[in-house]
Amino acid sequence: MSIFGVYGAPHAANLVYYGLHTLQHRGQEAAGIAAFDENGKGLRHRGLGLLGEVFNQSILDTLKGSIAMGGVKYANASKGGLDNVPPLFFHHHSGDFAIANDGNLINRAEVVSYLESRGNIFMTDTDSELMADLIKKEETGEDRIFSIVSALQKMEGGFTFLIMTKNRLYACRDRNGIKPLALGKLGDGYVVSSETCAFDLVGATFLRDVEPGEIVTIDHHGIRSMMYDEHPRHLMCGMEYIYFARPDSDIDGCNVHAYRKESGRRLCRECPADADIVVGVPDSSLSAAMGYAEESGLPYEMGLVKSKYVGRTFIEPSQSMRERGVKMKLSAVHSIVDGKRVVLVDDSIVRGTTSLKIINLLREAGAKEVHVRIASPMMTHPCFYGVDTSTKEELLCSHRTLEEARVKIGADSLGYLSPESTVASCPGREALCLACFTGKYPTPIYDHETEINK
Amino acid sequence: MSIFGVYGAPHAANLVYYGLHTLQHRGQEAAGIAAFDENGKGLRHRGLGLLGEVFNQSILDTLKGSIAMGGVKYANASKGGLDNVPPLFFHHHSGDFAIANDGNLINRAEVVSYLESRGNIFMTDTDSELMADLIKKEETGEDRIFSIVSALQKMEGGFTFLIMTKNRLYACRDRNGIKPLALGKLGDGYVVSSETCAFDLVGATFLRDVEPGEIVTIDHHGIRSMMYDEHPRHLMCGMEYIYFARPDSDIDGCNVHAYRKESGRRLCRECPADADIVVGVPDSSLSAAMGYAEESGLPYEMGLVKSKYVGRTFIEPSQSMRERGVKMKLSAVHSIVDGKRVVLVDDSIVRGTTSLKIINLLREAGAKEVHVRIASPMMTHPCFYGVDTSTKEELLCSHRTLEEARVKIGADSLGYLSPESTVASCPGREALCLACFTGKYPTPIYDHETEINK
Amino acid sequence: MSIFGVYGAPHAANLVYYGLHTLQHRGQEAAGIAAFDENGKGLRHRGLGLLGEVFNQSILDTLKGSIAMGGVKYANASKGGLDNVPPLFFHHHSGDFAIANDGNLINRAEVVSYLESRGNIFMTDTDSELMADLIKKEETGEDRIFSIVSALQKMEGGFTFLIMTKNRLYACRDRNGIKPLALGKLGDGYVVSSETCAFDLVGATFLRDVEPGEIVTIDHHGIRSMMYDEHPRHLMCGMEYIYFARPDSDIDGCNVHAYRKESGRRLCRECPADADIVVGVPDSSLSAAMGYAEESGLPYEMGLVKSKYVGRTFIEPSQSMRERGVKMKLSAVHSIVDGKRVVLVDDSIVRGTTSLKIINLLREAGAKEVHVRIASPMMTHPCFYGVDTSTKEELLCSHRTLEEARVKIGADSLGYLSPESTVASCPGREALCLACFTGKYPTPIYDHETEINK
Amino acid sequence: MSIFGVYGAPHAANLVYYGLHTLQHRGQEAAGIAAFDENGKGLRHRGLGLLGEVFNQSILDTLKGSIAMGGVKYANASKGGLDNVPPLFFHHHSGDFAIANDGNLINRAEVVSYLESRGNIFMTDTDSELMADLIKKEETGEDRIFSIVSALQKMEGGFTFLIMTKNRLYACRDRNGIKPLALGKLGDGYVVSSETCAFDLVGATFLRDVEPGEIVTIDHHGIRSMMYDEHPRHLMCGMEYIYFARPDSDIDGCNVHAYRKESGRRLCRECPADADIVVGVPDSSLSAAMGYAEESGLPYEMGLVKSKYVGRTFIEPSQSMRERGVKMKLSAVHSIVDGKRVVLVDDSIVRGTTSLKIINLLREAGAKEVHVRIASPMMTHPCFYGVDTSTKEELLCSHRTLEEARVKIGADSLGYLSPESTVASCPGREALCLACFTGKYPTPIYDHETEINK
Repeated sequence: MSIFGVYGAPHAANLVYYGLHTLQHRGQEAAGIAAFDENGKGLRHRGLGLLGEVFNQSILDTLKGSIAMGGVKYANASKGGLDNVPPLFFHHHSGDFAIANDGNLINRAEVVSYLESRGNIFMTDTDSELMADLIKKEETGEDRIFSIVSALQKMEGGFTFLIMTKNRLYACRDRNGIKPLALGKLGDGYVVSSETCAFDLVGATFLRDVEPGEIVTIDHHGIRSMMYDEHPRHLMCGMEYIYFARPDSDIDGCNVHAYRKESGRRLCRECPADADIVVGVPDSSLSAAMGYAEESGLPYEMGLVKSKYVGRTFIEPSQSMRERGVKMKLSAVHSIVDGKRVVLVDDSIVRGTTSLKIINLLREAGAKEVHVRIASPMMTHPCFYGVDTSTKEELLCSHRTLEEARVKIGADSLGYLSPESTVASCPGREALCLACFTGKYPTPIYDHETEINK
Repeated sequence: MSIFGVYGAPHAANLVYYGLHTLQHRGQEAAGIAAFDENGKGLRHRGLGLLGEVFNQSILDTLKGSIAMGGVKYANASKGGLDNVPPLFFHHHSGDFAIANDGNLINRAEVVSYLESRGNIFMTDTDSELMADLIKKEETGEDRIFSIVSALQKMEGGFTFLIMTKNRLYACRDRNGIKPLALGKLGDGYVVSSETCAFDLVGATFLRDVEPGEIVTIDHHGIRSMMYDEHPRHLMCGMEYIYFARPDSDIDGCNVHAYRKESGRRLCRECPADADIVVGVPDSSLSAAMGYAEESGLPYEMGLVKSKYVGRTFIEPSQSMRERGVKMKLSAVHSIVDGKRVVLVDDSIVRGTTSLKIINLLREAGAKEVHVRIASPMMTHPCFYGVDTSTKEELLCSHRTLEEARVKIGADSLGYLSPESTVASCPGREALCLACFTGKYPTPIYDHETEINK
Repeated sequence: MSIFGVYGAPHAANLVYYGLHTLQHRGQEAAGIAAFDENGKGLRHRGLGLLGEVFNQSILDTLKGSIAMGGVKYANASKGGLDNVPPLFFHHHSGDFAIANDGNLINRAEVVSYLESRGNIFMTDTDSELMADLIKKEETGEDRIFSIVSALQKMEGGFTFLIMTKNRLYACRDRNGIKPLALGKLGDGYVVSSETCAFDLVGATFLRDVEPGEIVTIDHHGIRSMMYDEHPRHLMCGMEYIYFARPDSDIDGCNVHAYRKESGRRLCRECPADADIVVGVPDSSLSAAMGYAEESGLPYEMGLVKSKYVGRTFIEPSQSMRERGVKMKLSAVHSIVDGKRVVLVDDSIVRGTTSLKIINLLREAGAKEVHVRIASPMMTHPCFYGVDTSTKEELLCSHRTLEEARVKIGADSLGYLSPESTVASCPGREALCLACFTGKYPTPIYDHETEINK
Repeated sequence: MSIFGVYGAPHAANLVYYGLHTLQHRGQEAAGIAAFDENGKGLRHRGLGLLGEVFNQSILDTLKGSIAMGGVKYANASKGGLDNVPPLFFHHHSGDFAIANDGNLINRAEVVSYLESRGNIFMTDTDSELMADLIKKEETGEDRIFSIVSALQKMEGGFTFLIMTKNRLYACRDRNGIKPLALGKLGDGYVVSSETCAFDLVGATFLRDVEPGEIVTIDHHGIRSMMYDEHPRHLMCGMEYIYFARPDSDIDGCNVHAYRKESGRRLCRECPADADIVVGVPDSSLSAAMGYAEESGLPYEMGLVKSKYVGRTFIEPSQSMRERGVKMKLSAVHSIVDGKRVVLVDDSIVRGTTSLKIINLLREAGAKEVHVRIASPMMTHPCFYGVDTSTKEELLCSHRTLEEARVKIGADSLGYLSPESTVASCPGREALCLACFTGKYPTPIYDHETEINK
């Protein structure tokens, strides 16, 4: 999921559209945009599908005004359907507001229970509805910022929130900074975005990251900051660098493509391979593969091609079609890999099923050897902050040695990047959340204890 | 445009779907598939939009049978609308048939006039309708293959045709071999495809190219060959290697990615540059850029990022949005190009407007110098065989010197690959159609004389 | 709006679909259906558009289970958008539930204020959300029926509610019985419907009306009744007989077509006309016109024809088209009305603009005289219970005498049915809510005082 | 099917849209409109679905110009699909043109064979394509009107054609006048329509019918007439009056509602019934039922109600749903028919299956007796001119006596109107095509001999 907000720019909803377009890789199941027009009237449109399927120009034209925000959402079995598509919109005599969020509360059950005991009932499965209800429960008649502080203090997890009233935008980030959120300047106004790659496209310039534990308030006074936690930590999710973010984003001062290329170089030094060519798994592993190729002196080749038009509308081949040889998405290029010893660079291995398939593709296309190199450590633990690597059992490496994993995916050799290099690939960075690799969760994990103790 | 046919495989239309999916880069405006079921009943579905928008599983399920063919079509102002979407379907008491084609007749006006004088009138603007009418006019009661030969002998240009009856598939290629067409084996059956990249995906193996001037007949006897021209030439369109084809296709025995990488290496030798990094224009120029980087020893960097989700449904930013800085499709990565001297590798320059924009993007992102290197010769002449580079005036280099072109696009330096290297990048190849670079058209150009003499 | 529920029948959602289809005349803007499957999992689909546009077989197939309910909604400026489409669905650890309602709370502002003061905030503009919040606020740990009683006692207006849990259906009707609601038997199960015309279509038989002030609970025990008000009144909305309901419905024991025909006969006796033919305004006034014709002995003729295919997708003629004579929906049949003195029977006049147009149509088609006869009294007051005759000013007769009204609509004569006959057309009935004709509202009208005192 | 054309009015395509809207009852499967803009450029849009589904304002806006024509098409198994949707559009160097037609050629096979022998092949199954090909074959260099005459002289059947060039409209009617076609005046321009009911809606006035065997040419000279057959006959299809046409249309000077009412009166005199109420089958039999009621003195009652929203999108109840009592489209009103002896008036009986169902509905709703009265003669022969009553076997009365038919449909009594009264209900009319009732076909029937001799 990702969120994008604009304050103080004409046709703000149009800019949100272009911003979300850039963030589409973070959520392709659904999209929504809300805005307040000059008269303070709240407007919203959302739908299932890619942004381009949900919006057209005439819909965007109805979302008038100079303040707007939106989100894109990925598929999530337990939070599906239109009701859960951001932003949510709330009516209250004191003023309507909209909320969207990225990430996950880890103490959701606790918060739900707190609210139900006070007579609440829920129309969605979102954390944004919990946020709205908490704000209202905490309202004391003082400034709303204090009820937001109170609400956030009840929440634990990896998340960012955008809260929009008719004349104000609040941007909030969890106290560990697990999820990213960046501030930009756009003419006289401001933008907030899950990733900085959206800034350039809308003509904005990067200002700074929203800090862990911070609430940034944007209104006609400009931007103001309030910390809702005095002891924030910088434990951003390592997978943001490794896999999620776009290569042209900078997070906490480090460019994602540069990070990946450096991780590829370090991977080569830690796990060299005696081979002929380096091939990356498109698209997220290409930067690491280039780094590996540069460091090793081996040629970087386009041995795997990804079909560009695969989308929601694609008809998946039936089982019988697959058995007759019909392939999908990825194909290996025979004339490139035939007879070659291939270093296959991938960003990470979750279940290992895709790795197995890709290695088979390469071998069918004639590859003599396939040496798999992963630009991140062995993934051994589930994530509860938004990565949705469901259960421990499903992870290839939760219960396998390196050698067992190699055998399982059918590689000639297998190497992983060290946790140290995973952090060090980002110059000057001291820590990342590597919970899925190390099991060291930055927060209490509440009801999930059972899962990880299995 | 591109065509794909299947003979002798269950659920042939499904395979055509996957084949066309792989060829989608050759036509994104419209798509269609026709099939004959076991009872010899012809079935067809076609529509405007991407393949995935035109077809769904239940539509595919209606296209039963073990013989099928289809095509995808690109946007073409003079041949728009559903009527012109391949395949066309024809009713006749002697048996229905379907026709689809890639490329263009260059003597279309002549053929139309011939047919009108014999009382014909047309419901489409396609060459396929002309083919059907010619076949019927030439019918003498002998085998249909002779009427097809007769029809093809009246046609001049760069084209391929697929003609399908209820139990036979004819695959035809123009006498100069300007357009590519390849044969594959699929179990007991056969496939025909504009590009070989489609073979792997459907589980077929490459057999051979259809030869210039050849008609391949596929039926229960297997494949048979007949030459309709005794003096064919091998003058395939150079732009197939340079730009059109997918990097994982092999054409006339040469892999497209390998060709492009080699052309990049040669480009570097012919036009070196004193620079810090090499950046390719996504997606078709990346192979050439890698070759250039390898040869030059400079790092290959992801300095330009292309938005993946741009499609028909994307809302183009308005002029006022653009003026306020909203960008499209391509963005330059500031943290990669800032302060760098960039070698920008592109496959070709047509009008030069895109080059100008990309150079500006790079400069805005901080590039110190931009050295443009083009992996093909200066394009000076219009193409009439399917590339649709309309008029001579529009071409950047039809009336400009190299230096004038450099100034026009705002590059620090500009270099083009030589025609010799354009051919030589394909090992063992003696000739290509380089008419758009050299003005040497492989066929008479009929009514187009006026255009090129301007 | 209208609601329809099914308990204890396989594929209950399918039956709800057919039921709502029959009730479509009460709401054409949006439709929704919710169901609980055998595992108690709640499912819902809703959308904007006619029922047939919102649902298809594959969607219906997902709504499994033997308990289901749904609603159709008419366009309402202040309650538009998908969020307000019934049924609403609520999550709670004690069990999910769905709610839909017909009609309007008249003390909505009061209820909203009560809930906001207890920390509630709203995601819709519906009375169903208020109902859910009230139920939760009133929960004491006793049976849910008591919280429903409590909630209903806080509500004033003309309304019906359907509340569905995974194994129970509650059907509620306002204490004045302003809105209709009927119970039917369907095999071993039950149906509840805003109108009885839906019973026949789904194969159900009429059981009885839900009584004013009654909550009917339907579950595996069968049906049980609880009165939440000890002094209910029978003041059903007169407009149900006059205009809203389908002619094949029976309400409180009286068939709607029979009511209308009788009102037409009485109208003829109260306001006879010296004329040649009787013409009714299609479709709701045809029964009254037939009654008028029978009583008068004049022939009943099809002098006005209504276009059948007018729907949401119809392109309204532009102003310039209208000026050039392009007409809409209704047309007068020249060969029938030419030279005739016409009695035009309509069910009611709200603003008078439609009457003016119809009279003009008839005169243009050659009618010599047009004598307008209205099968209800002069409408002088706004309704706040769901008819949405917005403001007093807009009503033709709120500030005009009979003669002024006649002049305004351009009739040769104008006659209205008396309030007495409006009640008496329903044999045995003692009272109806005639507030819009008489200003005698059956409930306090809260914030609306200002409106009616204007 | 039906056709509608406009010459000499701004935004002609808009007027065609409204005209076709009025004719939608004659074809609900597909619709299309073609126009020529001021520059003589031909434009067309067509699609499957109701007119309102095929067109929207922005599509209509593309169809510029003051000359336009269109058609709506009903479902027809052998002529389905988009290719067969009118109008067809043809390209020719001498000028493009569009053709649409109503009705059927009866010598289609003969014409097809004639054309194929001259080297033609077909892309559609329409008579319009045959017309275009014939015109081109007959062209001699003289005025096009002569080739149209020649073409029409080769055609036999019941049909009307509209042929449109960039500046001219040709309106043609078969020599027996089986299909209707009327001319209207619209400002300085003209309209042509299958039925006159479309004139009023678009602001046109009736001028005259196109005569059997006539070609009316409309251009800047006004209207000109040419007869292509010197011995035309007035044998319009009786079913136009009985069933097809809208009650507000006048055909050959007789209003359709008036015809039907008179046929009902005559039916009552020919086949009286001892009963309590008269009920018509909605919608086409209501006028006849009213006539029967007036003549008999029995009350006309709304004993059957037709669901208004039934359309293409309606989900048909499954067999199991039907068995459980779910009904469709028509329902009988219990409180009206219960205990009554009903005269059920219908316009015609084809297979008898619908009659059987309706009679059952009435009995289930409590009708004591059902006396069926049909306002046309016994249908004993198939029609080949457009009614599509396929095969003789399917007709209830092709092989049954009156009594056998009564038993088959389960009526208490059954009566039909005499052929004499069928003609005489239209004052002044001498003849109609009653082939389906009498077997006297007005034309040779070619290949259909086999069918009727079975």
